[in-house]
Amino acid sequence: MLNSSSTPKVPIPTLERLATYLRTLIDLEASDVETISSTDIEKQTGINAAQFRKDLSYFGEFGKPGVGYNVAELQGRIARILKIDQHQAIMVIGAGNLGSALIGYPGLGEHKFHIAAVFDNDPAKIGRQHGHLPIHAEADMRRVNLSVGARIAILCVPAQAAQPVADEAIAAGVRVILNFAPLILRVPDRVTVRNVSFLQELAVLSYHLSSEPAK
Amino acid sequence: MLNSSSTPKVPIPTLERLATYLRTLIDLEASDVETISSTDIEKQTGINAAQFRKDLSYFGEFGKPGVGYNVAELQGRIARILKIDQHQAIMVIGAGNLGSALIGYPGLGEHKFHIAAVFDNDPAKIGRQHGHLPIHAEADMRRVNLSVGARIAILCVPAQAAQPVADEAIAAGVRVILNFAPLILRVPDRVTVRNVSFLQELAVLSYHLSSEPAK
Repeated sequence: MLNSSSTPKVPIPTLERLATYLRTLIDLEASDVETISSTDIEKQTGINAAQFRKDLSYFGEFGKPGVGYNVAELQGRIARILKIDQHQAIMVIGAGNLGSALIGYPGLGEHKFHIAAVFDNDPAKIGRQHGHLPIHAEADMRRVNLSVGARIAILCVPAQAAQPVADEAIAAGVRVILNFAPLILRVPDRVTVRNVSFLQELAVLSYHLSSEPAK
Repeated sequence: MLNSSSTPKVPIPTLERLATYLRTLIDLEASDVETISSTDIEKQTGINAAQFRKDLSYFGEFGKPGVGYNVAELQGRIARILKIDQHQAIMVIGAGNLGSALIGYPGLGEHKFHIAAVFDNDPAKIGRQHGHLPIHAEADMRRVNLSVGARIAILCVPAQAAQPVADEAIAAGVRVILNFAPLILRVPDRVTVRNVSFLQELAVLSYHLSSEPAK
């Protein structure tokens, strides 16, 4: 869910689907597929072909009638639309299991994201290395980000720590936050937050169990 | 994203918002708040009051004009709608960092979810304890799930392992899957999949950096 304060012209679900198409195109290119049709996209992603064409229509002309879409070209254009054709520095706040999973997440590099700094408030972790990255004290966020320049933060801290840590990240120059803590962050209008709630995901799935016959 | 094969009458975004309301109501009840208005919900969640009332309207009459909503009652009704008023057993597949983060995720119990079994294919992990739970071999999934009865699986395995592991989980009785692997799973119509892609989340956020002035 995005804050109501940010109202982009392109609907969020379209952006989400663009990221799915991009993922699929990267895989197709790795398999040496050169050209695809919107029907192929439907087979690969489960998103129907008409939706795919509509999503692209926000951004101009794509593909050639009767020929289809060039995989490499389409991939490049979607990457540019999503602004992931340029390297983006990310700070990860919270070096627990979730933070560690994200730091090691394969595919970040393919999307030109790179984890540039890791922060924690646990004295036992501060100063230690996480892979090739040192873990910094959260109190040093502003100073560290002067050299790192991350505008994306991933918040992997417990709910009670999330708001002060988000405030600190914003003061350090962060403009978009991926928040895993189960609470609604209060942020200035210029900042965009996207919340990932495992409980919310499970609750939506749980609803779908209801139509099942009892075991 | 849910599979196109499952088409519930209630829109997915409504279900997602219901889970957000529920999260907020649990917090409000913990703070001894007894009654709230739709405007309070807007303040707490950022979801506007009219949207809140519209989301509830799928499920009958809620609240009293001029009085508002009883926090405990609304919480109970939303929990019943989402079918999380009953205990739901979950299996976690993949006991790496992400799996560990989910196993330790606070709040699962509040929503009556419980991790009932953990699976991995790493001989170094199989047979060890994760908290109070033994880690089972993925090959034992059907046997173990005969006693556990999990119909929800959380997939925390690498992309190349995800499809065979999902097939195994479905054969073991799983009906809904929360998938963290960056690929589209092929599943029978009776199975619902929800994908969480960290890359997709970051890509959507990255788009929102575009309107920022250059640093």
